[in-house]
Amino acid sequence: MIDLEVLHRLQATLIERRGAAPASSYAASLHAKGTDAICKKVAEEAAETIMAAKDGDRLHLVREVCDLWFHSLVLMTHFDIGVDDVMVEFRRREGISGIDEKKSRPATPGATFGEG
Amino acid sequence: MIDLEVLHRLQATLIERRGAAPASSYAASLHAKGTDAICKKVAEEAAETIMAAKDGDRLHLVREVCDLWFHSLVLMTHFDIGVDDVMVEFRRREGISGIDEKKSRPATPGATFGEG
Amino acid sequence: MIDLEVLHRLQATLIERRGAAPASSYAASLHAKGTDAICKKVAEEAAETIMAAKDGDRLHLVREVCDLWFHSLVLMTHFDIGVDDVMVEFRRREGISGIDEKKSRPATPGATFGEG
Amino acid sequence: MIDLEVLHRLQATLIERRGAAPASSYAASLHAKGTDAICKKVAEEAAETIMAAKDGDRLHLVREVCDLWFHSLVLMTHFDIGVDDVMVEFRRREGISGIDEKKSRPATPGATFGEG
Repeated sequence: MIDLEVLHRLQATLIERRGAAPASSYAASLHAKGTDAICKKVAEEAAETIMAAKDGDRLHLVREVCDLWFHSLVLMTHFDIGVDDVMVEFRRREGISGIDEKKSRPATPGATFGEG
Repeated sequence: MIDLEVLHRLQATLIERRGAAPASSYAASLHAKGTDAICKKVAEEAAETIMAAKDGDRLHLVREVCDLWFHSLVLMTHFDIGVDDVMVEFRRREGISGIDEKKSRPATPGATFGEG
Repeated sequence: MIDLEVLHRLQATLIERRGAAPASSYAASLHAKGTDAICKKVAEEAAETIMAAKDGDRLHLVREVCDLWFHSLVLMTHFDIGVDDVMVEFRRREGISGIDEKKSRPATPGATFGEG
Repeated sequence: MIDLEVLHRLQATLIERRGAAPASSYAASLHAKGTDAICKKVAEEAAETIMAAKDGDRLHLVREVCDLWFHSLVLMTHFDIGVDDVMVEFRRREGISGIDEKKSRPATPGATFGEG
């Protein structure tokens, strides 16, 4: 297993780029364009992830998941959310089966890995 | 900063569940349904991530990104891809600007964080 | 060629169902759940359309496009938009190449069939 | 009510463009790029439809639904499916409630306006 600190390093870079000149980097240009432009990329990368899976092309799938997570991180940075916020949420759900947690939770959206 | 090992632990759980009885867990049921069912969830969670961002609801956004990454992990497990494969891809891209890398790369899809 | 009036008839039905009891029909239940629930279905049907295309399964593709357009119509009805509004927009674009129109239009989103 | 024949005229144009030089029109360029490029646009326009709905921007929503249906038509043309095939499917479902039909149909995907 390799360490996952690359996610923290990437986050630090993305935070720096949030306020930078749009032409200075791809992430800076996305931040300058705003929420809709970033969301559109998330949708596009999700579609490409699905198409790579349908092709059964594993190398392509790795790259598309990487793109999807990267653009998720840009979106998170745009809203001042950190990788750690998502990791805390993953930990909160640890040891709780999706099926059980879904039954127990209130009707707030997204509270588990289930249908919500 | 917290450590990110929860992703490795989750992956280990998902691998166990891949072959388990469909009724035994949410992930097992997804694996039994197959690629299309998992892809459909990835698309759905991407849409919910976008809607949470449009609402500017940060707590909801954390939960939806968590759902999106969780279902990405289920899809990866379905194709025998590990978290580390994605982390290696993230590292490969480190220090390469999206704009520069996009110019340099061949026309293979998904080779950078850019438009592909 | 068959006539396309089924779209107007479907729209009339969807308008009736907008205010009906949620349990009375599928469309009524979607309207009662609101914008996010309808949007989630649009995203899901778009994903299923893509997967049917990737499978090269033409019968499935017809059904998924039908689902996608149906849920678009539910969303339109939810916002008091009619089939005719979309047809007027289609006519406005007739005879204008996507490439030319894209160049000529201001930076408002969605003004052509192009990238916007 | 206006007539819906614009969809048939658009289809005729798209069929012409399917074999044309990629640089000659936007639709021709999409056909030349192939299934993945067209599917990516369907996903993108679905995401933009959702974002227009979340903004409650009705004019934008009309334009995005128009984009979404346009790219659905490009995809259909790519697979030799006509507008009439979708209309026949709409008619088949007429008078059948989504809830009832969902119960009655076999487990084939996409057979109704329901969850499938």
